[in-house]
Amino acid sequence: MLFSNTRVVRIDWGDCDPAGIIFYPRYFEIFDDSTSALFERALGLTKIEMLKTYNFSGFPLVHTQARFMQPTRFGDDVTVESKINFGHRSFEIDHRLSLKGVTCVECAEKRVWVVRQPNGRLKSHPVPEEVLRKFRVI
Amino acid sequence: MLFSNTRVVRIDWGDCDPAGIIFYPRYFEIFDDSTSALFERALGLTKIEMLKTYNFSGFPLVHTQARFMQPTRFGDDVTVESKINFGHRSFEIDHRLSLKGVTCVECAEKRVWVVRQPNGRLKSHPVPEEVLRKFRVI
Amino acid sequence: MLFSNTRVVRIDWGDCDPAGIIFYPRYFEIFDDSTSALFERALGLTKIEMLKTYNFSGFPLVHTQARFMQPTRFGDDVTVESKINFGHRSFEIDHRLSLKGVTCVECAEKRVWVVRQPNGRLKSHPVPEEVLRKFRVI
Amino acid sequence: MLFSNTRVVRIDWGDCDPAGIIFYPRYFEIFDDSTSALFERALGLTKIEMLKTYNFSGFPLVHTQARFMQPTRFGDDVTVESKINFGHRSFEIDHRLSLKGVTCVECAEKRVWVVRQPNGRLKSHPVPEEVLRKFRVI
Repeated sequence: MLFSNTRVVRIDWGDCDPAGIIFYPRYFEIFDDSTSALFERALGLTKIEMLKTYNFSGFPLVHTQARFMQPTRFGDDVTVESKINFGHRSFEIDHRLSLKGVTCVECAEKRVWVVRQPNGRLKSHPVPEEVLRKFRVI
Repeated sequence: MLFSNTRVVRIDWGDCDPAGIIFYPRYFEIFDDSTSALFERALGLTKIEMLKTYNFSGFPLVHTQARFMQPTRFGDDVTVESKINFGHRSFEIDHRLSLKGVTCVECAEKRVWVVRQPNGRLKSHPVPEEVLRKFRVI
Repeated sequence: MLFSNTRVVRIDWGDCDPAGIIFYPRYFEIFDDSTSALFERALGLTKIEMLKTYNFSGFPLVHTQARFMQPTRFGDDVTVESKINFGHRSFEIDHRLSLKGVTCVECAEKRVWVVRQPNGRLKSHPVPEEVLRKFRVI
Repeated sequence: MLFSNTRVVRIDWGDCDPAGIIFYPRYFEIFDDSTSALFERALGLTKIEMLKTYNFSGFPLVHTQARFMQPTRFGDDVTVESKINFGHRSFEIDHRLSLKGVTCVECAEKRVWVVRQPNGRLKSHPVPEEVLRKFRVI
């Protein structure tokens, strides 16, 4: 089971640092949004609707790694292609960020599906079958 | 002389705080991007191209005020309408951010056109006539 | 009733933009933190402890205005002095951000004390008498 | 040659997301600042002074990986311990972020020393001997 989504993101002035290139933590904001966009496309729900529909608390990151090959600059419209691969209580997403066909950043993240317990703590939980089904259909 | 631009912006998960609503400094990032988008539309140049073409260093803010009437949440696609009004070395921009027709935030900012002097300091400078002309034409 | 707090904040590389000066939305992050720091000092509680102790949902901004007089740069250790003035369901905070005694930014914000209603919406609520008392004592 | 620095960082309200825990890209802002702080301590120069003194353009990231073991929340004062290990044109930094002695995040980053060429592009360059010497002395 593998599903992907592609979107275009503008790098803005305020994303860049005094060297004139993107400040790299902004890439992780872009990847986090790209993960949400992937789910939104598969499920037909925004993240706020997802949280209510499936009664969970998000999918926090447990591991990420990224390789930065080419810098990007304000005014660049970059393409982010994101692919998901589900485990039982977790999933992996690969993001490839490119500019005019040239790969600038590659990122691999692992996230867990969590629910809030009665004591307020977050705990991992199997990804609901209904969620998996929607990804399969597409 | 008055010119406006409208764009749609998605409020993302990472823009929001533990109360579940947007963390208000994110609005100012949106407004800064909206100001750049207005110039990009009028001049047909991205900001990085503008800086080279007109040999200036940006248009830093000297004053801003904002009224927050309704909160917005992740998943909201808000509309930002931005109107510009030029002075000699400065300009004013009014931003109206709305959701489904309801105004959520109103912001009025004043910015100055600056160039970098030989000593490295930024100094205000008249907005180039060519820039003003492009706004007039539209 | 007026109470103030002063703290020192480092302007970091990632706070600055390609012009080499601070990207102004970062100032509002600094001011938001300064408001929390003022409450923390008066109440002896961090914000997360405050939310539990007084059973409210935060103090969202309803209005802010700021004047930017001098830019700041990465490596600058700026001083933020914050003064509060309470109303019934709201309060005003004035922030003055300075570098080596020179005022760089002045900001005036108005916030409301809100609680979450059974339907999940946020609603304004009188600032608890106990909170006011702690500010008076100091 | 190995040198370390430790600092304490407050997790703020605006660093956290609707799940009430830190939005993970904020960790990378903290690690970037921690890298600067390490250099500042070794060289006795802020980053802006370093850029002038050694005539370079920064040390952009080429690779990072992070493991997130425990979430942190607003009000947490976390400790970041950063250790550096120099190569020829690059260096590696390990960051360990902990709360009350418990490791929350481990991050390993690789960065390159870059200078701006006459054509405006950034290019890797050997870390100056004087910089290495200052780290050795400490």
